[in-house]
Amino acid sequence: MTVRVGIVGVGVMGADHARKINGQISGAEVTVVADFDADRAKAVAAEMRDATVASDGFELISSDAVDAIVVASHDSTHAELVHAALAANKPVLCEKPLAPTAPECREIIAAQGDRNLISVGFMRRFDPAYNELKRASTPERIGETLVAHCISRNVVAGPGDSAATITNSAIHELDCMPWLLGSPITEVSWHAGRTSRHSGVRQDPQIMLLRTESNVLMTLELFVNARYGYDTRCEIVGEEGIAQFAIPAHVIVDSELKRSIEYPLDWVPRYAEAYRYELQEWVDAISEGRPSTLATAEDGLRAGVVADALVVSMNSGGRTVTVDY
Amino acid sequence: MTVRVGIVGVGVMGADHARKINGQISGAEVTVVADFDADRAKAVAAEMRDATVASDGFELISSDAVDAIVVASHDSTHAELVHAALAANKPVLCEKPLAPTAPECREIIAAQGDRNLISVGFMRRFDPAYNELKRASTPERIGETLVAHCISRNVVAGPGDSAATITNSAIHELDCMPWLLGSPITEVSWHAGRTSRHSGVRQDPQIMLLRTESNVLMTLELFVNARYGYDTRCEIVGEEGIAQFAIPAHVIVDSELKRSIEYPLDWVPRYAEAYRYELQEWVDAISEGRPSTLATAEDGLRAGVVADALVVSMNSGGRTVTVDY
Amino acid sequence: MTVRVGIVGVGVMGADHARKINGQISGAEVTVVADFDADRAKAVAAEMRDATVASDGFELISSDAVDAIVVASHDSTHAELVHAALAANKPVLCEKPLAPTAPECREIIAAQGDRNLISVGFMRRFDPAYNELKRASTPERIGETLVAHCISRNVVAGPGDSAATITNSAIHELDCMPWLLGSPITEVSWHAGRTSRHSGVRQDPQIMLLRTESNVLMTLELFVNARYGYDTRCEIVGEEGIAQFAIPAHVIVDSELKRSIEYPLDWVPRYAEAYRYELQEWVDAISEGRPSTLATAEDGLRAGVVADALVVSMNSGGRTVTVDY
Amino acid sequence: MTVRVGIVGVGVMGADHARKINGQISGAEVTVVADFDADRAKAVAAEMRDATVASDGFELISSDAVDAIVVASHDSTHAELVHAALAANKPVLCEKPLAPTAPECREIIAAQGDRNLISVGFMRRFDPAYNELKRASTPERIGETLVAHCISRNVVAGPGDSAATITNSAIHELDCMPWLLGSPITEVSWHAGRTSRHSGVRQDPQIMLLRTESNVLMTLELFVNARYGYDTRCEIVGEEGIAQFAIPAHVIVDSELKRSIEYPLDWVPRYAEAYRYELQEWVDAISEGRPSTLATAEDGLRAGVVADALVVSMNSGGRTVTVDY
Repeated sequence: MTVRVGIVGVGVMGADHARKINGQISGAEVTVVADFDADRAKAVAAEMRDATVASDGFELISSDAVDAIVVASHDSTHAELVHAALAANKPVLCEKPLAPTAPECREIIAAQGDRNLISVGFMRRFDPAYNELKRASTPERIGETLVAHCISRNVVAGPGDSAATITNSAIHELDCMPWLLGSPITEVSWHAGRTSRHSGVRQDPQIMLLRTESNVLMTLELFVNARYGYDTRCEIVGEEGIAQFAIPAHVIVDSELKRSIEYPLDWVPRYAEAYRYELQEWVDAISEGRPSTLATAEDGLRAGVVADALVVSMNSGGRTVTVDY
Repeated sequence: MTVRVGIVGVGVMGADHARKINGQISGAEVTVVADFDADRAKAVAAEMRDATVASDGFELISSDAVDAIVVASHDSTHAELVHAALAANKPVLCEKPLAPTAPECREIIAAQGDRNLISVGFMRRFDPAYNELKRASTPERIGETLVAHCISRNVVAGPGDSAATITNSAIHELDCMPWLLGSPITEVSWHAGRTSRHSGVRQDPQIMLLRTESNVLMTLELFVNARYGYDTRCEIVGEEGIAQFAIPAHVIVDSELKRSIEYPLDWVPRYAEAYRYELQEWVDAISEGRPSTLATAEDGLRAGVVADALVVSMNSGGRTVTVDY
Repeated sequence: MTVRVGIVGVGVMGADHARKINGQISGAEVTVVADFDADRAKAVAAEMRDATVASDGFELISSDAVDAIVVASHDSTHAELVHAALAANKPVLCEKPLAPTAPECREIIAAQGDRNLISVGFMRRFDPAYNELKRASTPERIGETLVAHCISRNVVAGPGDSAATITNSAIHELDCMPWLLGSPITEVSWHAGRTSRHSGVRQDPQIMLLRTESNVLMTLELFVNARYGYDTRCEIVGEEGIAQFAIPAHVIVDSELKRSIEYPLDWVPRYAEAYRYELQEWVDAISEGRPSTLATAEDGLRAGVVADALVVSMNSGGRTVTVDY
Repeated sequence: MTVRVGIVGVGVMGADHARKINGQISGAEVTVVADFDADRAKAVAAEMRDATVASDGFELISSDAVDAIVVASHDSTHAELVHAALAANKPVLCEKPLAPTAPECREIIAAQGDRNLISVGFMRRFDPAYNELKRASTPERIGETLVAHCISRNVVAGPGDSAATITNSAIHELDCMPWLLGSPITEVSWHAGRTSRHSGVRQDPQIMLLRTESNVLMTLELFVNARYGYDTRCEIVGEEGIAQFAIPAHVIVDSELKRSIEYPLDWVPRYAEAYRYELQEWVDAISEGRPSTLATAEDGLRAGVVADALVVSMNSGGRTVTVDY
């Protein structure tokens, strides 16, 4: 059986999903595409082996040619599209965020019931490096985890204020660190100092302290105009040792009195494998009729609630805020 | 259209190909499996979505359920199976070597004519690191290439003498270095010193000097009982700079007064991506009815002829031998 | 002219200073040694070319055979020995801390007047890596500094509570980061989560946030029972790039499926060069009758005042504390 | 006792020795300087605490103010100056080469008799990295050594042909590899391919194969116009593991989509510590009246004889040449 996938929204992210599903994933093909920009939809459909264009996301969701849906359209449309997928009783992979607010997330979760239809696109859970780090940071290898340090740097950020940066960018750490550490975040505080002249209206960089239920204290530096390269770092500090990411690079070049490796300009090369593994697992789970190991709607809610707590801390001078799930 | 693939030989390599084609490749599925060990064939077929077992490779090749064939059986069977695929006019991906001797390779090439049916499994051409190294070692980046250094180390070798080690193991460098440097190897010499106590009947390590038509001089250390880890290195030395592989590692662990990264035990993790890209390109080219970018039968012949010249050098005290294509 | 040095206290640190001055420093020699353990004093004196043993630090300071004094005795004795050196009008290099409290430091500074006699042993200012980091983190190279991350890890700590750990160990960062960043620390907060089972009575690790007058926000992880190795890290994050320490290692060993470099067990190898450069500059400045570039008594006071503010934060649940110089 | 040192030749190397002896070495001072360029001699003498200028090397050697001599003048003058030092019965540290030909070296050795007066400036024996590599490449750590790979690259070479490059530059490996491996080089061959457009009259790079009496086979790439940076590499391949140099760097800078470390322009920073340790050991041995651990005149002869064998191989089309000591 081939899973017939409809893609709603074929901007950078949705088009990349479409190409991966069509060209690199076993057991799936893209059959319908929709986008508010009809030309863009047509162009991406034309790249596929055999795909049509729907007039909008709702038509796509209800199409008989679609078994499962990827929602990669504008954030503001996610909630209603996911509701439509639930109404059609079809599996849906929704890019984060599931919905703009926690109450709206909770409504979606209620509407889903026990059907396991919703997956949320926290692809870092499928990144080979994060998975190897998870395996390397067990008590047997490095002792009990005590502290973690995360750094998330983009080259150049799009528009957005400090709160939006937390909600859209820090959200990845807010999902994957509890997954990695096996414990939810229960307390946060937000800090900042000098801001980059490239930062626009936002504070950049931002420093956050996060505490898990298991009392692991984390530092998180979020710097979305770091200029030098796209860079995700994570270090797990245990009682007997530490584990951290190596710099991902295939090749070293020595020239002009320097030994250098290259940074990517954005997340695309860094997480290409993560997206592929995520999509393959999503398709396999649908084919086999089992729950996938992707992030669930509840995971999406949890990350959003932590982000909200960070915004509260930011707006109250950096005070420590307890996360209320 | 889904390419229906038959796999002849499902030992470690063939079973891995079968699993990749069935679980990670878009547009293909394994439909028939054959192996001299019928239980092994049955077990691998059972892992597939919908595959049967053929009584032997020839039955598999002529099956109506098979569009294309992977030959991963014992080296001694490759030539006759490839001839059978040519007779059936079906595309065949043959693991190296294509045939045990140059004359037998030439017979196969003659039988193929201009049909472009044969691909040879030199997967390094699809390895992301080799491809990035090729892009990094252009005249614009590092000047004209002058010298190259290759190191190929296995943890523990199977049985085999020095000549077999060249033919089976060094053969990968003998194919991919001319591909990388854009020039065939025209002159070789073979050298050795102290041999490892783990080496068995073979000389281990072996040191080879290789010269391309473009007069790039290469050193190649082949060490198949290196114990410490599976390790492929390649350094391209240019007039203005050098390019070389970084050590592939996702995670660094610090413990017990050491900072460490792990080596794989064998080629499987090192070249997993290369095999996947190679198979996807093979399937895509078949689907699209175009020649693939995999190594051709002629490439397989060329690498074999260089290996033969190295064996001649070895058997004549290390003298310099001109390669006669 | 050879500077004749007296060493008060020849435990690990003082004996190391004595050996360096006698064997690796130009223009100086150790002439008198004192220690509360007379046998230890005798043993170290016997290692020197031509040194005698004084009955105590005060006799040593007033000896005609001593031009300059190194104070490396127990912390509790520093203040009175430095006062004695001032009374004798002789240059003194005092290991940190200068005195146990800020008022006592201020008394010493008052007693010194404008004589430039006191240097404090913050050797990191002479570490080649810190100096290269300082040169690499200028606005021209990485833009204005925005954030810094420091990590200070020991393998196994001696006895001491959390406050003592700040005062004795974090003190090095509290001195060298303002030196490196060119701005004093004005605000601090102290944080902690799960503590190591190896931590004894102290909280370990501790996380501190430090803010400079120039509004650079720093994270500092102090972990004195880190087990895996002695490790000092520092990363300077600028508007256009970052600069950080490389891991200091001369040799890489590959064995048993691992590529490894070794960590030192303690600070001795990590800072051997720093101590040598510090001592040479101290001796050169004395010979040439000029102020040295070592940390001054005022620097020692400043670092102590920041440490005191961190202890206040720790004792008040992690609140943000303004540093009052 | 302070060893009073005379320096003959104060070009880059001699002036550096003078500054080190005067400013960084315990127990020595520069008392007399000579150079064929009288102004240069005066300038360097003026930098010292208390040094005079001799009219030539012979006057310096016989001066009552000189206990020991450093010969750092032009290569062509070494032999006669060393003979003069032997005649004066004073210790002499001669930069390599000791003499232009093996017979002249043998004459010097004969003139020395059993007096242990001559040391040769093969400073790599005192380099911390080479010493750590020697300790790391023991049978206990990596098994019996089987193969070694050396790379020696300069940024830009001065004038000289291929033979001079071997004699002046490769000579360092020819001395230190036998020292490191504990076995003399007994067989060599010389190879070359495409030459750099920056190479001038010489072949550049050159590839050499060297075999020790213990049957360790070595590759040596000598590339004196490598442009990208001054770079010395050494890898020891053992039966159970390998040991090699880490890249020496204190600081990593990330900027402009690159992570970089800097290469030095020449040997000065790379071997600064080696020269300092070498000079300190030379001075200590003189002070203590014992033989030093510096390379001896016999070591100098041995390296020269291997270099001569390489030139023979080069001039005879790369044939294998047995080294005749």
